[in-house]
Amino acid sequence: MATTVDPQQATENNHHLVKSDDSKHPANLIPALCRKFWTLGWVSGTGGGASIRDNDLVYLAPSGVSKELMEPSNIYVLSMSAQRDPKKRIYLRSPPHLKPSQCTPLFMAAFTKRNASCCIHTHSQWAVLVTLLLESQSPSSRLFEINNIEQIKGFGKGFGKQGNLGYHDTLRIPVIENTPHEEDLTEYLEEAMEQYPDTYAVLVRRHGVYVWGDTVDKAKAQAESLDYLFQLAVQMRKLGLPWVSNIEQVGPS
Amino acid sequence: MATTVDPQQATENNHHLVKSDDSKHPANLIPALCRKFWTLGWVSGTGGGASIRDNDLVYLAPSGVSKELMEPSNIYVLSMSAQRDPKKRIYLRSPPHLKPSQCTPLFMAAFTKRNASCCIHTHSQWAVLVTLLLESQSPSSRLFEINNIEQIKGFGKGFGKQGNLGYHDTLRIPVIENTPHEEDLTEYLEEAMEQYPDTYAVLVRRHGVYVWGDTVDKAKAQAESLDYLFQLAVQMRKLGLPWVSNIEQVGPS
Amino acid sequence: MATTVDPQQATENNHHLVKSDDSKHPANLIPALCRKFWTLGWVSGTGGGASIRDNDLVYLAPSGVSKELMEPSNIYVLSMSAQRDPKKRIYLRSPPHLKPSQCTPLFMAAFTKRNASCCIHTHSQWAVLVTLLLESQSPSSRLFEINNIEQIKGFGKGFGKQGNLGYHDTLRIPVIENTPHEEDLTEYLEEAMEQYPDTYAVLVRRHGVYVWGDTVDKAKAQAESLDYLFQLAVQMRKLGLPWVSNIEQVGPS
Amino acid sequence: MATTVDPQQATENNHHLVKSDDSKHPANLIPALCRKFWTLGWVSGTGGGASIRDNDLVYLAPSGVSKELMEPSNIYVLSMSAQRDPKKRIYLRSPPHLKPSQCTPLFMAAFTKRNASCCIHTHSQWAVLVTLLLESQSPSSRLFEINNIEQIKGFGKGFGKQGNLGYHDTLRIPVIENTPHEEDLTEYLEEAMEQYPDTYAVLVRRHGVYVWGDTVDKAKAQAESLDYLFQLAVQMRKLGLPWVSNIEQVGPS
Repeated sequence: MATTVDPQQATENNHHLVKSDDSKHPANLIPALCRKFWTLGWVSGTGGGASIRDNDLVYLAPSGVSKELMEPSNIYVLSMSAQRDPKKRIYLRSPPHLKPSQCTPLFMAAFTKRNASCCIHTHSQWAVLVTLLLESQSPSSRLFEINNIEQIKGFGKGFGKQGNLGYHDTLRIPVIENTPHEEDLTEYLEEAMEQYPDTYAVLVRRHGVYVWGDTVDKAKAQAESLDYLFQLAVQMRKLGLPWVSNIEQVGPS
Repeated sequence: MATTVDPQQATENNHHLVKSDDSKHPANLIPALCRKFWTLGWVSGTGGGASIRDNDLVYLAPSGVSKELMEPSNIYVLSMSAQRDPKKRIYLRSPPHLKPSQCTPLFMAAFTKRNASCCIHTHSQWAVLVTLLLESQSPSSRLFEINNIEQIKGFGKGFGKQGNLGYHDTLRIPVIENTPHEEDLTEYLEEAMEQYPDTYAVLVRRHGVYVWGDTVDKAKAQAESLDYLFQLAVQMRKLGLPWVSNIEQVGPS
Repeated sequence: MATTVDPQQATENNHHLVKSDDSKHPANLIPALCRKFWTLGWVSGTGGGASIRDNDLVYLAPSGVSKELMEPSNIYVLSMSAQRDPKKRIYLRSPPHLKPSQCTPLFMAAFTKRNASCCIHTHSQWAVLVTLLLESQSPSSRLFEINNIEQIKGFGKGFGKQGNLGYHDTLRIPVIENTPHEEDLTEYLEEAMEQYPDTYAVLVRRHGVYVWGDTVDKAKAQAESLDYLFQLAVQMRKLGLPWVSNIEQVGPS
Repeated sequence: MATTVDPQQATENNHHLVKSDDSKHPANLIPALCRKFWTLGWVSGTGGGASIRDNDLVYLAPSGVSKELMEPSNIYVLSMSAQRDPKKRIYLRSPPHLKPSQCTPLFMAAFTKRNASCCIHTHSQWAVLVTLLLESQSPSSRLFEINNIEQIKGFGKGFGKQGNLGYHDTLRIPVIENTPHEEDLTEYLEEAMEQYPDTYAVLVRRHGVYVWGDTVDKAKAQAESLDYLFQLAVQMRKLGLPWVSNIEQVGPS
């Protein structure tokens, strides 16, 4: 499915890059995923987004459109190899009358530093509330931790590692502070990736979360599992239940 | 798409005004939007509504119908220029067996005083709860304020101003008291527009919210972003988290 | 649309009574309504139901089927005039392999005592929680009251009365105690109708609610408005907000 | 619909076993049920699953796929009679590129020990929260109990017994501790079945629930009723309402 394009064509509108009858083509998958994300409250009010990398090509949702109404013709296409300077991104395909997403450099970080194939950004309220609850404990708290919940097994052990986390493992998701301009988050995101090399997600304070995966299916599954855990964590807090526990205390005798 | 109609024809039922194969035609958009709003709980029990202005023509949902089942043939059409006296509205097109919405003068206020192209009215419980929480603090409290939440960037800076609010900006939505007859809200709504010239929305105590935008897409996006913030605000209150904060205290060192 | 049938035919399976191309035919409307109610959580696990009366004929959902999967062929049909003894109901049409709903005598009460055209029974958790909250205040508390909420205007003033309740009016919904056998609720329901002749709904403790209307549209709208108010009431309780207030205290000065 | 297959064919891919135009065929029903379960939040992030037994044949959802996107071609098929050693399960049909579900031995327990026709496994947060609330009262608490709620009537009296529970009956669902490997739950599940022979469900601490039924419809209805009760129980706890009550105290005088 990998299509290579001469970056010199970048000024032209390579519509063929987003035209396919294959429902698994990134230009068809992104709108389908975003329709689903809208029903989950992840991309309300044009917030959030998603990007898929297919070998050298990166497919991106545009900025400021109703994500559940997006169409393949709205998709941007970048070339990985053509990215010499992140400040000078070369778009192989740019939809008319639209703006590229401010999330682009953050998606690119997941592709270049973690070799991800898909990165999802949500404004899920559960993610935002988790960052607010951490902040209320300590303004400088930078880590969400939860353990002994089955859904944790929905996450891979980490970049380049085989297998998934276990039930007793503690899932750790770093939190970075939000910035006025989303592009400025990139530095913080990359720092968090360095500090937590095994994480597949980074929370953004009072903003949302970025989640990625080795495949589109894994990115989607990890995004769903993480939102499940964020929602559960908020409910647990309302009920006075701790996020981290020593299960030995409660195991069968 | 602007169709002009001789007000003298007002007694006739200009069905052609609501008949179009274009999914973007206001008479098709309003039912599509209302179906979506119903799934969000914004227009339960025939409450709420939406109106779109296309140049001189104003398209309105009727009163007292199941909003998710509305059809183009149920849409009312008014002429802006034909509105000499708001008490004597001239309908270019009136569906048989239906009543015009009591919200009409409020929608008109957004069109005439803010040059909006679309105005949405919801009975969202999150909006109602926010007005109740403000009232419980002080019966005369007339302003919802929230800041340092990413979704705030989903709002324009204000009427006639370029660009959107920033992450650190404080979003301010005025609250007006409810009245027994919805038409009587108009005066309060217009006062709130005068007092807060940059607002794109006005909360109505124990009732809901009116949101508008320069385009249909912007009105929809601002309505979604606002409901997101109202819901978040209610959750924050349940968790003892303040709506307004000095982010410097929690920013990265 | 009124079809009359010789009660002597009751032993035959009058399939024609539930066969129609008209989407507004009761045998098509009931499954369509129940599909919608399932998405609202009103009829989970085969609970709840709905009935429509068309002149002499009463159409009923069966017992113990997944309400969102119901089909016109699953609908029972009764004759009002043929009901001499409620204990000996004559079904003009009985689907094979199904059981009639235990709610039947309660639906019939709305049709015979209030001349309703549609009656909806939900197991909505919001309705159940409201009855539990009332019980926790006083085990014998038999009345849900709420006022000064716009959605209250979604209710008619009462049986045989013109117009709807006003914003300042107090909506009163009687609560009856649940019984082991649903049919035994009938007596309590009829007593509540006598005591509150203007009510369009009766709550059943720890069970759900019955709502009816002069038309199918009004019954649906009142059911939605009531569930909206029950959900709002539960949220208000969580936030320490009273259900009944003297609005003069908070009105504009 | 019972198809018998020579276990010797197990190495072959009997695609005909999952190919049918009948929407009630297990290979069509499982994907349809899982699409519905996904919308309920029961199978987020590839969690949970479902299995149907048709006489000698057992149809199973695979592991690690987006349950709402599952297709009949993804379904595994086992032969009951061919199961000599649970450690050596013989698959009559195995989809290429997929892994069998770790839930398989737990589903098999419901089929072999309770003669169930369908078993559903959800990661519903309401189920998880109920197990956490029980744990917070007493780490060794092993039983969820609720009574005097109408929806309890949605459950059968027990294995081999006629009729359903009554309104005043107490529904008891045993809780087993979670294990790192899902297959290791089987022993605990079977113990719980022995200790509570009438139960149609077993909660798994910090994990979810297994629910089964004599038919597919009954399993689905019991799964929905149980999730309804778990959600209600969490709401009751938030509102300070007890799960078990002596209804005589609140009955009509």
